[in-house]
Amino acid sequence: MSGWLAVVGLGPGAGTLVTPEVTETLAQATDVLGYVPYVARVTPRPGLTLHPSDNREELRRARHALDLAAAGGRVVVVSSGDPGVFAMASALFEALETRPDLQGLDIRILPGITAMLAAAAAAGAPLGHDFCCINLSDNLKPWPLIERRLRLAAEADLAMAFYNPRSAARPQGFARALDLLRQVCGPDRLMTFARAVSTPDQRIASVTLAEARPEMADMRTVVLVGNSQTRRVGRWVYTPRFAS
Amino acid sequence: MSGWLAVVGLGPGAGTLVTPEVTETLAQATDVLGYVPYVARVTPRPGLTLHPSDNREELRRARHALDLAAAGGRVVVVSSGDPGVFAMASALFEALETRPDLQGLDIRILPGITAMLAAAAAAGAPLGHDFCCINLSDNLKPWPLIERRLRLAAEADLAMAFYNPRSAARPQGFARALDLLRQVCGPDRLMTFARAVSTPDQRIASVTLAEARPEMADMRTVVLVGNSQTRRVGRWVYTPRFAS
Repeated sequence: MSGWLAVVGLGPGAGTLVTPEVTETLAQATDVLGYVPYVARVTPRPGLTLHPSDNREELRRARHALDLAAAGGRVVVVSSGDPGVFAMASALFEALETRPDLQGLDIRILPGITAMLAAAAAAGAPLGHDFCCINLSDNLKPWPLIERRLRLAAEADLAMAFYNPRSAARPQGFARALDLLRQVCGPDRLMTFARAVSTPDQRIASVTLAEARPEMADMRTVVLVGNSQTRRVGRWVYTPRFAS
Repeated sequence: MSGWLAVVGLGPGAGTLVTPEVTETLAQATDVLGYVPYVARVTPRPGLTLHPSDNREELRRARHALDLAAAGGRVVVVSSGDPGVFAMASALFEALETRPDLQGLDIRILPGITAMLAAAAAAGAPLGHDFCCINLSDNLKPWPLIERRLRLAAEADLAMAFYNPRSAARPQGFARALDLLRQVCGPDRLMTFARAVSTPDQRIASVTLAEARPEMADMRTVVLVGNSQTRRVGRWVYTPRFAS
């Protein structure tokens, strides 16, 4: 009996945003691994072992998952959102890189609804034209690289989505990002703060860059920044399909 | 009886990638509007009127949908992928902008699995770090703006996803995009051509920029370009979570 490994996206929170592909894969699993709050979204059942682990344990978790699948397990690693967007898919391949003996394993990556797209849908269509997606955490890259990317993205007039905008451990970064954006984009640029999208705690606020405050974001928030054409219509914010 | 309007994403093709939220919404609809091949993915039933329409009819379709909902219909506009990514959500808000009388309508945008994330999952995790998403069609913006965005995105070392890379009507653009990328990124940069992702016609090819040929893309292809760190592991391509 040969094992397999699937890295799946649970979407941003609501059960109605989990794809049938992921639901069916979870139903066949013997083992589920992931960060504590994501594993808590999987319904326990006989024959299924849940392996919740801490944040920042991504590489160890990926190695554990590979070992379980190599031993014949039907193993699912759960991510929030999409597994390929600042989540477990890259960690899995980092682990696989050091294990050539396991590169023949049956591995699948199953996409999910990533937070920025659920946030954009809740706000209107702020990512309706070219956009970029930047992780504002400087755990995995130096802050000057983040600033450089923000500046070039703003010069390219890309709409932007920020993941991990602000944590208690590094509250200054997002304030600096806002300062930089104000220099390049001007005060009227529309932004959306989308917290806990698709959950009962969902809170969506669209404000101008002049009105934006660092405290409007935390680690459960995705921040969307419009391009120079982004505008309001009624209670919505959207970016036109056209640019000149 | 008050009508409503939902703009929904059907995902890239596979039925198993349609969210339950979208499936439930379609089950309540009286009218479904969209581009011919997307409406063809909706199962007909008594009480449901299908309104397929041509490509490039987005604004007219959006106005029609608003009128049907205003008259009490339960109206669903279907997009492929996610409705907020180069799809019908922005067109709907463009139409709504000219109809202040309808801005109180019950409107919802329901996210879907967008093609670039399904393509990335099929290839590994090439979008596992900061990335951008650019529509290469110059129907809606001038070509020099596309070139400017490509150049700045490459300078920012963002991974990239290209939608609508190449059509029969404008075969030159993608060739010029490849030339530009070769100038900035060098010949070894990894790219993935993902055609008809999640359908029976799916074809995934990961090649270097030196090996890439314009004919590898058509309008059913999403093209992914890695960043400077993107690498192969076994049969996969992935971008590490780290950058320096």
